Amino acid sequence: MTATFPRHAVIREVGLRDGLQSIQTILPTEHKKAWIRDAYAAGLRELEVGSFVPARLLPQLADTAELLEFARDLPGLFASVLVPNLRGAENAIAGGADLMIVPLSASHAHSLANLRKSPDEVVAEVARIRAARDAAGSKTLIEGGVGTAFGCTIQGRVAPDEVLRLMQALLDAGADRVSLADTVGYADPGMVRDLFARAIDIAGDRFWCGHFHDTRGLGLANVYAALESGVTRFDACLAGIGGCPHAPGASGNVATEDLAYLLGSMGIDTGVDIGRLLDLRERVATWLAGETLHGTLWRAGVPKTFPSQAARAAA
Amino acid sequence: MTATFPRHAVIREVGLRDGLQSIQTILPTEHKKAWIRDAYAAGLRELEVGSFVPARLLPQLADTAELLEFARDLPGLFASVLVPNLRGAENAIAGGADLMIVPLSASHAHSLANLRKSPDEVVAEVARIRAARDAAGSKTLIEGGVGTAFGCTIQGRVAPDEVLRLMQALLDAGADRVSLADTVGYADPGMVRDLFARAIDIAGDRFWCGHFHDTRGLGLANVYAALESGVTRFDACLAGIGGCPHAPGASGNVATEDLAYLLGSMGIDTGVDIGRLLDLRERVATWLAGETLHGTLWRAGVPKTFPSQAARAAA
Repeated sequence: MTATFPRHAVIREVGLRDGLQSIQTILPTEHKKAWIRDAYAAGLRELEVGSFVPARLLPQLADTAELLEFARDLPGLFASVLVPNLRGAENAIAGGADLMIVPLSASHAHSLANLRKSPDEVVAEVARIRAARDAAGSKTLIEGGVGTAFGCTIQGRVAPDEVLRLMQALLDAGADRVSLADTVGYADPGMVRDLFARAIDIAGDRFWCGHFHDTRGLGLANVYAALESGVTRFDACLAGIGGCPHAPGASGNVATEDLAYLLGSMGIDTGVDIGRLLDLRERVATWLAGETLHGTLWRAGVPKTFPSQAARAAA
Repeated sequence: MTATFPRHAVIREVGLRDGLQSIQTILPTEHKKAWIRDAYAAGLRELEVGSFVPARLLPQLADTAELLEFARDLPGLFASVLVPNLRGAENAIAGGADLMIVPLSASHAHSLANLRKSPDEVVAEVARIRAARDAAGSKTLIEGGVGTAFGCTIQGRVAPDEVLRLMQALLDAGADRVSLADTVGYADPGMVRDLFARAIDIAGDRFWCGHFHDTRGLGLANVYAALESGVTRFDACLAGIGGCPHAPGASGNVATEDLAYLLGSMGIDTGVDIGRLLDLRERVATWLAGETLHGTLWRAGVPKTFPSQAARAAA
């Protein structure tokens, strides 16, 4: 009730990775570059541009190295990539990524099914990645992303204590940053408030990001609860893509444009021009014709009372 | 941050009024009765069944008297109707409604455009309604519903002080209950937190209900912020119908099924069986074929970890 909100928050656009890996369409590299360029022009300064996984597993993301190179040419853009293992991390380091996200699934069942490793094996891999990064004299930050932090579709409940144990283990293994993700949309704002408060107590400034899916409509309510807990960086996908491939049509990640509106309306500066973001959404919708898109703001547009860019620049 | 959540909350289904008045389809009375019966069977105990306005203005709601009679036969069902004026109130009293909602628009421009009265003229009408109700020895409660409480599409900004002045005036004129509504979906959770806290300070136990639209995706985040402020009753429409007729396709009211999931997931008892609610949503979707429906939960269903009815009954 008495939480004060931050003056600034960061939206990390993850549509090019979490979004595109979950849908059928393979977006041409030129469209992806246009997406990066236009997201940058709309004011976004953090993008997850892809994933260093074998192309036979995720052909949608086979051009990650080229996109990373492209993104690095945009001044002030902070480019992240996902890396599932040491081999991927070597590519991220070689490509000069600003940050590499190592996903860990707190659900043992989900971890074995999706990553073919136990959570503790992922922790051990992070230690190897840290050693390799330091040996290379690289500045690429390592983010340990704890997924299925609120439960999973295979195992069901995931104990908060286990989530936090693994988060601490990632920090101990050398992760520079840690995050929590509601991978399958099981969280509610009460759970978020409790778990994020504990996570921030543990990780302090090394707590990096909240990653929410809108699978059951609670995405932005969960963002708001995390914001109250002190989180100031959120993942989002333009047009809310990124649903689970096992649930066709189900909503995906929190929609970037809706998140930008939530934060902007509350007077929290994100640097984002929502008009330009909605323009980009329209282009993405053309590129992804046939895919189910999500998000809500695009239908109605911003309110008459929404602070304009000009007004905010003058303030 | 330290708010404790209530153990119980009430969902008032307003789809038969706010929902149906905004769409083209005129639902046959038999379908409306099935909706009332099945909503009741799913555990909902408060329904807004219609509006006592002239049938030439809202032919969709011409059967309100018949529906009110039908609803009154269901034991323990609390039936509300909307009344725009004394004449409507006389019908509500004659029909034995448990509660009649008198809408007031805090935006003067919106009030003149939609109600053809200034807000203070509506306050005066509430005084006449109160006198008529008391003279009739009726127990029908009077709810003063302050709409466009967060701004409006015509006037833009609506000052919170003016909203609260009108809410106080409604209480002074004899309203038994007062509510706040974000009629056009302009609210964000920060605004909700601030305004609802002040409203509850003023009205205490006479503060009745929060009414949110999901026009720009913030509906449930706003509900959550209101919940933190102490609100325990929320309006909602099955399948999120009830958008503004001036913005075709725009999302409408918060979806009943998503709201029931939010509250249920947080362990707040609403008495609602979400499975039955989703079944009813499916029937409503058939009845309203061709209309744009909303809501999110229906695509994915409840999580594996969601407390079952059986588990909750045993707890």
